Amino acid sequence: MKKIRMGMIGGGIGAFIGDAHRRASRICNDFELVCGVFDANYERSKEFATMEGIDLSRCYESVDAMIEAELKLPDGERMQSVSIVTPNALHFPFATKLLRNGFHLVCEKPMTMTVAEAVELEELVAKTGLTFALTHTYTGYPMVRQMRDLVASGVLGTIQRIDAQYYQGWINSIIHGTESRITGVWRLDPKHAGASSCMGDIGVHAFNLIEYTTGLEIKEILSDLSSVKDDVSLDLDGTVLLRFGKNLKGVIRASQVCGGEENAITLAIYGSKASLKWAQENPNYLYMLSDTEPTRVFKPAHGYNEKLAEASHTMPSGHPEGIYEALANIYTGTAKSIRGQKFDPGEFPTVHDGVRGMKFIHSVVESNKKGNVWVSI
Amino acid sequence: MKKIRMGMIGGGIGAFIGDAHRRASRICNDFELVCGVFDANYERSKEFATMEGIDLSRCYESVDAMIEAELKLPDGERMQSVSIVTPNALHFPFATKLLRNGFHLVCEKPMTMTVAEAVELEELVAKTGLTFALTHTYTGYPMVRQMRDLVASGVLGTIQRIDAQYYQGWINSIIHGTESRITGVWRLDPKHAGASSCMGDIGVHAFNLIEYTTGLEIKEILSDLSSVKDDVSLDLDGTVLLRFGKNLKGVIRASQVCGGEENAITLAIYGSKASLKWAQENPNYLYMLSDTEPTRVFKPAHGYNEKLAEASHTMPSGHPEGIYEALANIYTGTAKSIRGQKFDPGEFPTVHDGVRGMKFIHSVVESNKKGNVWVSI
Amino acid sequence: MKKIRMGMIGGGIGAFIGDAHRRASRICNDFELVCGVFDANYERSKEFATMEGIDLSRCYESVDAMIEAELKLPDGERMQSVSIVTPNALHFPFATKLLRNGFHLVCEKPMTMTVAEAVELEELVAKTGLTFALTHTYTGYPMVRQMRDLVASGVLGTIQRIDAQYYQGWINSIIHGTESRITGVWRLDPKHAGASSCMGDIGVHAFNLIEYTTGLEIKEILSDLSSVKDDVSLDLDGTVLLRFGKNLKGVIRASQVCGGEENAITLAIYGSKASLKWAQENPNYLYMLSDTEPTRVFKPAHGYNEKLAEASHTMPSGHPEGIYEALANIYTGTAKSIRGQKFDPGEFPTVHDGVRGMKFIHSVVESNKKGNVWVSI
Amino acid sequence: MKKIRMGMIGGGIGAFIGDAHRRASRICNDFELVCGVFDANYERSKEFATMEGIDLSRCYESVDAMIEAELKLPDGERMQSVSIVTPNALHFPFATKLLRNGFHLVCEKPMTMTVAEAVELEELVAKTGLTFALTHTYTGYPMVRQMRDLVASGVLGTIQRIDAQYYQGWINSIIHGTESRITGVWRLDPKHAGASSCMGDIGVHAFNLIEYTTGLEIKEILSDLSSVKDDVSLDLDGTVLLRFGKNLKGVIRASQVCGGEENAITLAIYGSKASLKWAQENPNYLYMLSDTEPTRVFKPAHGYNEKLAEASHTMPSGHPEGIYEALANIYTGTAKSIRGQKFDPGEFPTVHDGVRGMKFIHSVVESNKKGNVWVSI
Repeated sequence: MKKIRMGMIGGGIGAFIGDAHRRASRICNDFELVCGVFDANYERSKEFATMEGIDLSRCYESVDAMIEAELKLPDGERMQSVSIVTPNALHFPFATKLLRNGFHLVCEKPMTMTVAEAVELEELVAKTGLTFALTHTYTGYPMVRQMRDLVASGVLGTIQRIDAQYYQGWINSIIHGTESRITGVWRLDPKHAGASSCMGDIGVHAFNLIEYTTGLEIKEILSDLSSVKDDVSLDLDGTVLLRFGKNLKGVIRASQVCGGEENAITLAIYGSKASLKWAQENPNYLYMLSDTEPTRVFKPAHGYNEKLAEASHTMPSGHPEGIYEALANIYTGTAKSIRGQKFDPGEFPTVHDGVRGMKFIHSVVESNKKGNVWVSI
Repeated sequence: MKKIRMGMIGGGIGAFIGDAHRRASRICNDFELVCGVFDANYERSKEFATMEGIDLSRCYESVDAMIEAELKLPDGERMQSVSIVTPNALHFPFATKLLRNGFHLVCEKPMTMTVAEAVELEELVAKTGLTFALTHTYTGYPMVRQMRDLVASGVLGTIQRIDAQYYQGWINSIIHGTESRITGVWRLDPKHAGASSCMGDIGVHAFNLIEYTTGLEIKEILSDLSSVKDDVSLDLDGTVLLRFGKNLKGVIRASQVCGGEENAITLAIYGSKASLKWAQENPNYLYMLSDTEPTRVFKPAHGYNEKLAEASHTMPSGHPEGIYEALANIYTGTAKSIRGQKFDPGEFPTVHDGVRGMKFIHSVVESNKKGNVWVSI
Repeated sequence: MKKIRMGMIGGGIGAFIGDAHRRASRICNDFELVCGVFDANYERSKEFATMEGIDLSRCYESVDAMIEAELKLPDGERMQSVSIVTPNALHFPFATKLLRNGFHLVCEKPMTMTVAEAVELEELVAKTGLTFALTHTYTGYPMVRQMRDLVASGVLGTIQRIDAQYYQGWINSIIHGTESRITGVWRLDPKHAGASSCMGDIGVHAFNLIEYTTGLEIKEILSDLSSVKDDVSLDLDGTVLLRFGKNLKGVIRASQVCGGEENAITLAIYGSKASLKWAQENPNYLYMLSDTEPTRVFKPAHGYNEKLAEASHTMPSGHPEGIYEALANIYTGTAKSIRGQKFDPGEFPTVHDGVRGMKFIHSVVESNKKGNVWVSI
Repeated sequence: MKKIRMGMIGGGIGAFIGDAHRRASRICNDFELVCGVFDANYERSKEFATMEGIDLSRCYESVDAMIEAELKLPDGERMQSVSIVTPNALHFPFATKLLRNGFHLVCEKPMTMTVAEAVELEELVAKTGLTFALTHTYTGYPMVRQMRDLVASGVLGTIQRIDAQYYQGWINSIIHGTESRITGVWRLDPKHAGASSCMGDIGVHAFNLIEYTTGLEIKEILSDLSSVKDDVSLDLDGTVLLRFGKNLKGVIRASQVCGGEENAITLAIYGSKASLKWAQENPNYLYMLSDTEPTRVFKPAHGYNEKLAEASHTMPSGHPEGIYEALANIYTGTAKSIRGQKFDPGEFPTVHDGVRGMKFIHSVVESNKKGNVWVSI
């Protein structure tokens, strides 16, 4: 099958997330990187293109230049989709331009800087009918998809509590001055990162995982955030109380100052009949708890899994796949959508998930600012 | 050494916590059960005494009868301490009577029904100079004690976040009507359990563990509780936001409706230099995380442990001790105090911990009632 | 119920295994320590008796003296059972004397020094009709008992492979001279320890666990042992190939020089339909694997367990019990036998298990000596 | 940088290992698949080439045809390396032909059918000076490489015991007739699989891991193999005793009938000062045990790791990479070698590892055939 011709914005030398997108696109084998604006600095962008083996004539100085030049190329050569892996503030302007010019998009999260932008983007996607995939990468893990399908099957009974965690420690070294990571610093600057550091960067993943796996909408939140050090203006840590409706509450805990934690995302969904627990650092284990039965451990590549989970792992059981394969699974789903093939709605997060995420981030900031009160999402 | 003669109130046939106290007292080998009021029903109390091999003449019909009779016994025969393992509402009246008559006490938590009672009890203990141990059993685990000493040593740097969890699922079977556990039901009745089910029974353990291990006081809390089912009047689930002072926040999560969870207490203390994590169901593993070093796993019975932790485990390393030994460790400390021997303040929780616990419970209930606002402890 | 009056031989000051037996006997609450010969040195023995609160008139200078004096006591006072916790070489002479004088026995393993002694002891037990319990303590764990009953139920199908491990590292510090543990040294001396160190002390536990859980007999073994250092005469390390009959093989791996290992006993039983795995350091988790179903994790205190496993854990689920409770479970079974009550054959290892163990140890030593050839057990 | 033009033999529709090689080659981004003989059936081969987007003119009917045609292509177009992913029996004939015609090779293990072939291949590689990488994939994991470098650093002291396991259960369903996996069956046929099933397919991985991580050579082995069912002619299960020289022994345990095990490779290296443990199913955790220090858990993407381990993981810590990335790491090293760049000897297994592996397999079969005697490797 012909590969989808893909462009990239951002993701040049030293940018780990751009590299992740490229690897994922190669793993799934449905995309071919043909052009890009890899760095705001054109020289560095070209340096990167050379390293990567990209034709320099398609390494552009700006997004405008890219759009203009690509549109002039014949159908069978022109880029078809673009992956946006820039700092947060640039997602919206680039995404809207690209959509208006007919390009499918894969976009990093958080999707935009404001809720208004997110809503505008959602309308634009609807109008254009183009594919828009938001890379909430963790939804690409087979066992997260299994979780979603198990919840949908009703096996948990009534859901009674939901608890999600996203703990990291990497900002410690920055705020305590023993290290200064270039790729990290923009996350502490509201101009580039938006209204929130911790909740915008990682809390929103926890939020998305909850809504992805349960199919439920979080209705109201109450947050308490902390910037931990006096000279930090954004949140680095926080707890968010959740309400889903009558008799179902939950909590999101997120922090970038949990020293020694690496990427400790956990999700627990407790039901009246059974419960599910998953942790990202050992992504191939899904635990189903019950009051009356032994705990059951689901793993990928077994006939007992639901269809989408099963299709999301290619190796035989016991051969662990990881984060790149999770992202590749999202690219696979995106490719199906771009090609007009049938796909499961769980195969990639959409612009609507992006709208939900932006509403979450802004509600959380608002609740905290108003003195920890309930705010509707 | 002569054993301390111990009486017991409550803990008769079918009561698991009374049995735990007796086992612990036998393990530590400093106590000898000589008398008691084991059941409100005198016949059942005597039946139990017979089974247990207690002299029937010292199986009393009431606490008053017990005090009266024991006081008449000569010094070398009279009971010296009493373990109170009744439902919550009876702790205070019995404790005050016994203290006023010169008996040392070991008391189950939550200590009283109200904060006023707790304060009164604290004053009474101070006045009498008697030993009062509150069985926050989890503080008896070697690795919890190691955690306390590691925090005190300053190795964590500045504490930046604290997260404690206590999840159980056992009430599910009661509220959903598939099972009715006799020992469980009083916990749902405000008359016997007090103002709270979940927070009073288990949330308070998480609270105590935080204050025990860190030596910090929680200053303010904001809670959101849930009774899950419309016909339940007390909380079965909740999240409590914590503030310890400037720039240190945390969270307690507690629930009795997390189906399939057994007794899932976890505690994480995150510092600027290192962090500590512990989970009750694997109590002999303490994890020290750091951004720059491999995670270290502390286990009991190693020379690298602090003194109290080391003294709290008797078997060679790799021979797991459990919950009974944790409780026995508290009894051991209590015995030292009763005998006037030197002991470490970490060896048993005191009436002051009980006062703190009651303040916690009542603040949590108040915050929830007032619409999830901040309340001082 | 009246407690069984128990004597003890060995187990004085500093002896951890004697302390373990006393604690276990107190936990199960069926025994009362009334007399003993706690140390070869009579002064130290009396010192210990004083500390322990044992009547000094029943702290004896020798086993002969103990037997003579106790036999003169009236029925209701005389000791009924004796726990032998001396170095290995003394088990047999003391056990035979005590049996001939009508005392029930609890005996540490390895049971004797030679197979002939073991067989003689078995005949003596049969002749006297007395209770003889061998403390293969690990058989007291609830999940080991569950394993036994699950195997017996046939749920595994045909057993295809058995793999048991017992790894420790404590002898490292002795053989490399950085530490000299008094209680450890006799294990390296053939006069006190017998023909083997590693296989006699720990390999035999692995052997026993296999026969206990599967009900199978190991027919033939081939061993390769290592004494690791030139100046050590006994084995500190070894691997034993096992044959159970046609098409079922297995392996026992045991070592005392696995630096950093504490008490790492593991057992895996692989069947054509399902498999079971257990590890002593987390004794409350039993894993059932299957090619077609999610792995199931059995834990104590759940209605899904078999009867004996269920009766072997007293706390509610999630409250970990440990090694002392395992040993107490064996004492409980022994008490039932002494009292003539009904008991499950899985409740305590017998003199026959001791015979099997001695045959194993001697076969292993013989196979190794003969150049790693097959030897029948 | 220009990609290396890669051909492939085998790996067509339904072949999981060929797919793994292609994914790995794309992840590392140093190779480009340009031609191949993907299936013995030419039609299926072309069908596969079409799916994969390979130019049909370079989808060849035979290896001879491939060599002939590719040699006619100009330098900048001709394939440079070939990945051989056929059944075992074809490795040797294809490898020798390809080497003689100047093509670098990546070859699946076991490398050949006989030791003589392996030695001949080693001589041929030496003579041609071409790159030959044998895909013992597990050596590509960052923590296996860390293990190798930690051992080399001497931190373990004297190595005292080595224990490797490779347990799978997938053949159960075939031998018990409930399933018939097409890709599996050739492994049971000596004509295609060689002298051994279990040891040839998986035992040899354990052997390689030991020699890779320790730098030691296994001198002698004694094996006991089992074919489990009467109608199976090759080994499906076995234990191999190992001798490395004076005072260092070890064991390899391998089985394909451990029902429910997926791909349970473990390696433990015990030294006089410290020990290392690793398990493939959680490949990003490496445990360093010590008698005097808390266990340390090494994870990828941390500054504390050795250089090669650190370079072998691209994501930030806590983002798990898996088996495809391990194989990609081997492809990366192979690419460096092909391009004449500097590389670490740990970056890919060589033809010499293949010779060692074949000697191991044949020694194991010989030892077993001769009645479980010691055989030199």
